[in-house]
Amino acid sequence: MTSMMALIGELWRLERHILSDDYDRALKRLADELPMKIHEVASGTRVWTWTVPEKWTCREAYLETLDGKRLIDAKHNPLHVVSYSLPFEGEVSREELLAHLHVHPHLADATPFVFKYYQRDWGLCAPQTLRDSLKDEKYRVVIRSEFTPGSLKIGEVLVPGERKECFVVAAHLDHPAMVNDDLTGVVVGVEAARRLLAGPKPYYSYRFLFFPETLGSIAYLSRNEKLIPQMLGGLFLEMLGNDAPHALQRSFAADAPADRALVGALRGVEPGAHVGGFRNVIDNDERQFNAPGVRVPMLSLSRVVNPHLEGSRFYPYKEYHSSLDTPEIVSEERLEASVRLTMDLLAAFDRNRYVVNIFKGEVFASGYGLWVDYKSDAAGHKRRFEIMDRCDGTRRVADIAEELGLSFQAVWDVIDKLIEKELVSLSDEPQPTDPHLR
Amino acid sequence: MTSMMALIGELWRLERHILSDDYDRALKRLADELPMKIHEVASGTRVWTWTVPEKWTCREAYLETLDGKRLIDAKHNPLHVVSYSLPFEGEVSREELLAHLHVHPHLADATPFVFKYYQRDWGLCAPQTLRDSLKDEKYRVVIRSEFTPGSLKIGEVLVPGERKECFVVAAHLDHPAMVNDDLTGVVVGVEAARRLLAGPKPYYSYRFLFFPETLGSIAYLSRNEKLIPQMLGGLFLEMLGNDAPHALQRSFAADAPADRALVGALRGVEPGAHVGGFRNVIDNDERQFNAPGVRVPMLSLSRVVNPHLEGSRFYPYKEYHSSLDTPEIVSEERLEASVRLTMDLLAAFDRNRYVVNIFKGEVFASGYGLWVDYKSDAAGHKRRFEIMDRCDGTRRVADIAEELGLSFQAVWDVIDKLIEKELVSLSDEPQPTDPHLR
Amino acid sequence: MTSMMALIGELWRLERHILSDDYDRALKRLADELPMKIHEVASGTRVWTWTVPEKWTCREAYLETLDGKRLIDAKHNPLHVVSYSLPFEGEVSREELLAHLHVHPHLADATPFVFKYYQRDWGLCAPQTLRDSLKDEKYRVVIRSEFTPGSLKIGEVLVPGERKECFVVAAHLDHPAMVNDDLTGVVVGVEAARRLLAGPKPYYSYRFLFFPETLGSIAYLSRNEKLIPQMLGGLFLEMLGNDAPHALQRSFAADAPADRALVGALRGVEPGAHVGGFRNVIDNDERQFNAPGVRVPMLSLSRVVNPHLEGSRFYPYKEYHSSLDTPEIVSEERLEASVRLTMDLLAAFDRNRYVVNIFKGEVFASGYGLWVDYKSDAAGHKRRFEIMDRCDGTRRVADIAEELGLSFQAVWDVIDKLIEKELVSLSDEPQPTDPHLR
Repeated sequence: MTSMMALIGELWRLERHILSDDYDRALKRLADELPMKIHEVASGTRVWTWTVPEKWTCREAYLETLDGKRLIDAKHNPLHVVSYSLPFEGEVSREELLAHLHVHPHLADATPFVFKYYQRDWGLCAPQTLRDSLKDEKYRVVIRSEFTPGSLKIGEVLVPGERKECFVVAAHLDHPAMVNDDLTGVVVGVEAARRLLAGPKPYYSYRFLFFPETLGSIAYLSRNEKLIPQMLGGLFLEMLGNDAPHALQRSFAADAPADRALVGALRGVEPGAHVGGFRNVIDNDERQFNAPGVRVPMLSLSRVVNPHLEGSRFYPYKEYHSSLDTPEIVSEERLEASVRLTMDLLAAFDRNRYVVNIFKGEVFASGYGLWVDYKSDAAGHKRRFEIMDRCDGTRRVADIAEELGLSFQAVWDVIDKLIEKELVSLSDEPQPTDPHLR
Repeated sequence: MTSMMALIGELWRLERHILSDDYDRALKRLADELPMKIHEVASGTRVWTWTVPEKWTCREAYLETLDGKRLIDAKHNPLHVVSYSLPFEGEVSREELLAHLHVHPHLADATPFVFKYYQRDWGLCAPQTLRDSLKDEKYRVVIRSEFTPGSLKIGEVLVPGERKECFVVAAHLDHPAMVNDDLTGVVVGVEAARRLLAGPKPYYSYRFLFFPETLGSIAYLSRNEKLIPQMLGGLFLEMLGNDAPHALQRSFAADAPADRALVGALRGVEPGAHVGGFRNVIDNDERQFNAPGVRVPMLSLSRVVNPHLEGSRFYPYKEYHSSLDTPEIVSEERLEASVRLTMDLLAAFDRNRYVVNIFKGEVFASGYGLWVDYKSDAAGHKRRFEIMDRCDGTRRVADIAEELGLSFQAVWDVIDKLIEKELVSLSDEPQPTDPHLR
Repeated sequence: MTSMMALIGELWRLERHILSDDYDRALKRLADELPMKIHEVASGTRVWTWTVPEKWTCREAYLETLDGKRLIDAKHNPLHVVSYSLPFEGEVSREELLAHLHVHPHLADATPFVFKYYQRDWGLCAPQTLRDSLKDEKYRVVIRSEFTPGSLKIGEVLVPGERKECFVVAAHLDHPAMVNDDLTGVVVGVEAARRLLAGPKPYYSYRFLFFPETLGSIAYLSRNEKLIPQMLGGLFLEMLGNDAPHALQRSFAADAPADRALVGALRGVEPGAHVGGFRNVIDNDERQFNAPGVRVPMLSLSRVVNPHLEGSRFYPYKEYHSSLDTPEIVSEERLEASVRLTMDLLAAFDRNRYVVNIFKGEVFASGYGLWVDYKSDAAGHKRRFEIMDRCDGTRRVADIAEELGLSFQAVWDVIDKLIEKELVSLSDEPQPTDPHLR
């Protein structure tokens, strides 16, 4: 078993373009850690409204002065060449070069990450400082890239539960030579999958997916349409290593059972964490799952800086899409906290069923060891009665938490005791016990 | 083709009492402009809880001093006699005269419009200034009016669409010698009907109705009950010539598809226009359509001064129900603006169907020419995705506009492109495409 | 027929413990006033999650100094011994005595009411002043109490209506030597039942229940489960004699037809009265009726001091659960006002059916004598139309009142006229008359 930081250390420098040999190597490495099924979809395959692109390989890419002084070289950092750049070789005027030489908008010393999957163009990337120093009339550019038929690859780890209905956890494995976006999501997902496999069999099944951004989601979903109705919710993991509190983004449905369970559980662990609406925290593959014709309520967990706070100058985080997104900005401690939180969110989802009262009237609390003295703990006394009063077969655990403004865990503590005393049971479907409804 | 002001010029002085020869003449004149069906309902006919009254004719009506000085004469202005006044002839004391001589509440120089359809009484109307000058002990009154069997007449112009389900546009043609209330609604309705007939066949059918106030609506509806279930919405047109911004009054349902479409379209044309709740802007025939047992969601469009603004001293407008309601207070330009707005409202209603996605997942926007660059137009980029994200067979066009706080037109611009690309279709019925719902 | 204060005078000093001879005497006395069925449930019977306790009898209970000076004696006030105290006899140290000698939290001169039904312990009660004066090292305690098999008794008065569906009115008869809690609820209930029996046959049936707190509700409901679906609502009566305005507590459902009818009727009688949410005014037996598996929407009427107001130091009222809760703090006048209010609440419940329009369109108001002149009574004119506009078979009387912010009575006045004119009828079930719904 490898630590999360060690796995990042092995994988981060790989040139993980969306279809590339290094991406395949990284996915194969994950498969050593876990029982993983690898799906392949060939270049040119139509996936819904999209088409799987070709594999891209860059043999060599550099910029030099006419007298042969090498200014930037992709050998030192793959970010120096635009991902999916067309091949190019020749002398170019300073003006033409600048039109193809990309810099980062606010980090003058960093090389940006730029990709042009559909705009068919050549391009190089460099720090702003280097670009500012270019004074010659002409430069020499070499980009020896190739487009060849390949296959898009998706790794899937299934944790089988008592039910085939499942919850999807996903992260994207592409992006060359970067860490927080989104190797951190990948290693947190791998670790959560490992712990779930090692524990007792869950109620629902859990599918962990690792793929290239956007196209990976589209390809997986379009090739597995029959599974979509079984997907009851999901969580996209990303940007979990930077030094910021957690942020949870709701699904398109805002208030689906998955939303209520995860938001309620977060309240129990990090009450002050930012919870934002769909497309209001950070956009990524959860968009494909939430989209029309799919409608899996997928939330996302990240450490994105709250974009609605004053002074969020560096949204989503300072080193985003740059050569500064390195192992130095993430920590094993934060990754471990994210794994634990992920486990808590999944546990809440797994328990979030309808609570059906076997009792009628109010329970004889002291007779069942459920009495909380109102003189010594008025709030606890009130809460226990308020929870029991809502156990009527029409509410899930998270619905009760939501109504009462409590955490999922606080409600579960009571429900768990009631299950043990055989005063309530859990059900997948609503079972209203109001005699007037019969 | 007659201009709207020219048509007003021809009709306004006619003594258009609810059942009268002049009313019939006015309706016949409209029938010259448009293919119109004229419905007749005989005096004495029971229409729901009402009874159609007799025709009323006033041969002569005046007030004079005992020595024969004529003070007021309906020959000069038909408003001088109460509409549906009983006949009367004789000498009356000053006191008795004053009890039957009506004045306007705030326009001292104007003769008011007064009607007594059910209170069976005689009456004359005069300016406050004249009334104040009456000092004699006795006066002579002559009202030679007649009540005879007649028929209430309703003009109907049908613009057939692909569907028999229809939208009703209505205005009232009665009210002697007045213009803004409601000849303006009539001429705007005539012009809108003409343009609709000249254009491409609409999706829904459109029924334009011209009738006497209240009784006309009741008579038409009670005699055409089988059509009511086909009426999906409506718009009453009135007071459209005075110098004030447009005001749109919602239907009883507040949020019916017709409400959402028309309110959303108004937002695209006059974003600051007043939108008020049912019975909160101005009361008229839309009351009968919205009433129990009918429940056609009929809105009303007017230029009524917003009664909730400070200083709305002259609600609904200064010259209302007086001899000052003449062609001078209306303009062709304002009437034309009201016609254009009416056409925009009808266009929105016609397009307001469910948007059903043929695509699944997010659309490959750049591949379909739908890409809006987020660097150059962040709002446009976001809006396009937000609209596409709501195309799921459960929302009408106006529902998407309402959810996003956009105008109907802004949403339609995107939907129209998606239809062209065969990415969505329109449907009368909801067609949810969420795979979890099957 | 006995006045309410006279009945209180007869009953209040009885030692009405939950199962006791004096409780049985009190119930028998009520049965003299009204046709009452008495239900008995034997000690030891399992009632849902509870068990009916034994009968408790206290032959003698006192505290004295070792030299025989009697300090407190239950002979003078039954509150001096804890209800359901274990028997005890012997010399105890001052320290042990104080651990079993209960005082009132804020009334230094009063003896508190303390009960220990399930905590099996012995105990005495005394004023704080007496407790503070105890300086001896040892005292003598005598509690000659007995636990014997008995039966819990419930009195039921049925007022049969046209329908077997019923409304429940309840009050608790136990609590030794106290008045406001809850003999006042009992006598108000007795008087209301008497008046209802004397009047015309109501539409619904009414069940008046008198029982010991909590266990009485549980026992009655568990033994009459088949009646629960017929119970459409209820009202618990308590603390109706103290000098404070009425307070109405909503049911668990907050907005059930019973809630809307009673809240709307209260608005017509005491517009400023406090209306609070379930469990937010005062907790009592309505909890059992509102509980899971029962779900009868039972409100409660009291004169509890609004706990959310500033300075509500003595919630629910100053003399609560103390020897100061005597006939002196209640008045016939206030009890009579509560009876009248109760009758108004029940009348509203009885009339709160769906209003189905027989008319279509707006009613020809002046033709039916329903015209309210808008010049002399603009508000009345508007209100009448707004009420008629909502008579469409989808709203109950109280729904219309709620929508318009009117009292139940104000709406009923209009509905009553419409019924008389055969313009509307009442229905138990919704009968939507919108032609578009067919």
